[in-house]
Amino acid sequence: MSIAEAGEFGLIARVVAKLENYPTTLLGPGDDSAIVAAPDKRVVASTDVLVEGRHFRRDWSSGADVGHRAAAANLADIAAMGATPTALLVGLCAPADLELAWAEELAGGLADEAALVGASVVGGDTSASPTLTVAVTALGDLGGRKPVLRSGAEPGDVVALAGRIGHAAAGYTVLSRGFRTPKALVEAYRRPSVPYAAGPAAADAGATAMIDVSDGLLQDLGHIAAASVVGVDIRTDAFEVSDQMRDAAAALGVDPYQWILGGGDDHALAATFPPGTTLPDGWREIGKVHEGTGLTVDGRAWSGPAGWDHFK
Amino acid sequence: MSIAEAGEFGLIARVVAKLENYPTTLLGPGDDSAIVAAPDKRVVASTDVLVEGRHFRRDWSSGADVGHRAAAANLADIAAMGATPTALLVGLCAPADLELAWAEELAGGLADEAALVGASVVGGDTSASPTLTVAVTALGDLGGRKPVLRSGAEPGDVVALAGRIGHAAAGYTVLSRGFRTPKALVEAYRRPSVPYAAGPAAADAGATAMIDVSDGLLQDLGHIAAASVVGVDIRTDAFEVSDQMRDAAAALGVDPYQWILGGGDDHALAATFPPGTTLPDGWREIGKVHEGTGLTVDGRAWSGPAGWDHFK
Repeated sequence: MSIAEAGEFGLIARVVAKLENYPTTLLGPGDDSAIVAAPDKRVVASTDVLVEGRHFRRDWSSGADVGHRAAAANLADIAAMGATPTALLVGLCAPADLELAWAEELAGGLADEAALVGASVVGGDTSASPTLTVAVTALGDLGGRKPVLRSGAEPGDVVALAGRIGHAAAGYTVLSRGFRTPKALVEAYRRPSVPYAAGPAAADAGATAMIDVSDGLLQDLGHIAAASVVGVDIRTDAFEVSDQMRDAAAALGVDPYQWILGGGDDHALAATFPPGTTLPDGWREIGKVHEGTGLTVDGRAWSGPAGWDHFK
Repeated sequence: MSIAEAGEFGLIARVVAKLENYPTTLLGPGDDSAIVAAPDKRVVASTDVLVEGRHFRRDWSSGADVGHRAAAANLADIAAMGATPTALLVGLCAPADLELAWAEELAGGLADEAALVGASVVGGDTSASPTLTVAVTALGDLGGRKPVLRSGAEPGDVVALAGRIGHAAAGYTVLSRGFRTPKALVEAYRRPSVPYAAGPAAADAGATAMIDVSDGLLQDLGHIAAASVVGVDIRTDAFEVSDQMRDAAAALGVDPYQWILGGGDDHALAATFPPGTTLPDGWREIGKVHEGTGLTVDGRAWSGPAGWDHFK
């Protein structure tokens, strides 16, 4: 059955049936607006759009995969402020002949990823469109924490990373060359594994700046460097290149550090901490902040691709 | 200059330059997430998507018009809960050859409409897409009010309306027949005039149910009837058919009540109040709630179109 056959309200009913409410949901789908708890009296909010052919392909990813990834991209933005996610809102634009089952899988993936952090899908909107598009907004609560911005890094700070990096980019390259394995890399592209708890933990540990690595580590650390008016140097020996990644890189003729330093989509978190900070669980040092500007790798300019421009 | 020539970050910089911050914006665009004041400890949130060719046409509406309408559709959903809007987040999916000026106008329209209620655009995302799509999320604050749901209408309640109705649908018909006048109707389609303050005022006056009229009065009151398990009867003599609407209807061979009862896009607010309530400013009685189910017009079934299905 297509979503046109189900009708707008049929689609919404089937999608809502996939959702579960969490304590932060004071009013879920079905009214003009949702109502979400904001105990901190400040709400953290972020929006991301995913466009078919640009951010996902239906022959590479299932509806559930796209749901997981769309949710992860937004939930990671909340975590990167030092907040815990509370809710998602979803706008789905879809061709009228989209299979209802795909839309239901999408909703299931969104809900399952949100459930990892105790959040739920509280509302949304649907429209017909020639281009399958998923627009997600995530909300979060700071729980009394000071938000960690991009602009607070200081010379002498330690640069640290939480979560895996380069795996999603490697999976993307594998898929784009027509392969389906290694499965670990392909799965990393399909469903990021985001260290959500590392965001609030970093805030509690005194992180001076933080960012979600969505476009590529160097590009995203470049945003911290620019906003903080500092220089950042990354050490390549801080990254372990897994055997799978090394083998795939060799087979595909790619430098694995292009995936690690320039690849997006893993939604690792990168942060800076004052020197001497005991890094919280899940964080590892990858470089240093110094006076100056810009990004260097092992003290030198990086010649490879630094990340994405979404209109290039 | 196209948005591809400006680049993703150039586009964002130009758009952000159009924005102004209001006191509810604790952290505006430029970080992983925005931070918005939520003094009530509950945040009201709603999402709407607008798709070119479906919700707007660039030959009918300017970028600023689309911005006003996209913002209004969402802000009205906040008002319909009895809340005041605090912020918008915007996802823009656009062909790479979209004129940068159009995107800037869109941002200006969004910001200007939000400014009417003291809210601002606090964040967003952009992506290339073959289909021009604007996804907007609005946030709002209840200010201690009990939210007004769709489910609270009781037999005996008065049905009331705030804001103009049928004008946007009339303007849409005018444009779709190839005309550009009457200007008042066309402008009503391009930029809804939403009675935002009437939402919180209705909540303060004890409204039992409320909805934003976005799909058509009968369809939207049908949502209240269904959620409240009541019947609703609307009186046609409660609606004044303006001379302009009457003339346009005669010229186009349309029953003006099709626009008034079945047309969407004006974003009027409809609510129910306990009998004997002194209706707040801007509200007028248009019918009654009774025991039973469904919608009637002057006590009879309505044979015309009741509203939209976004996949039909």
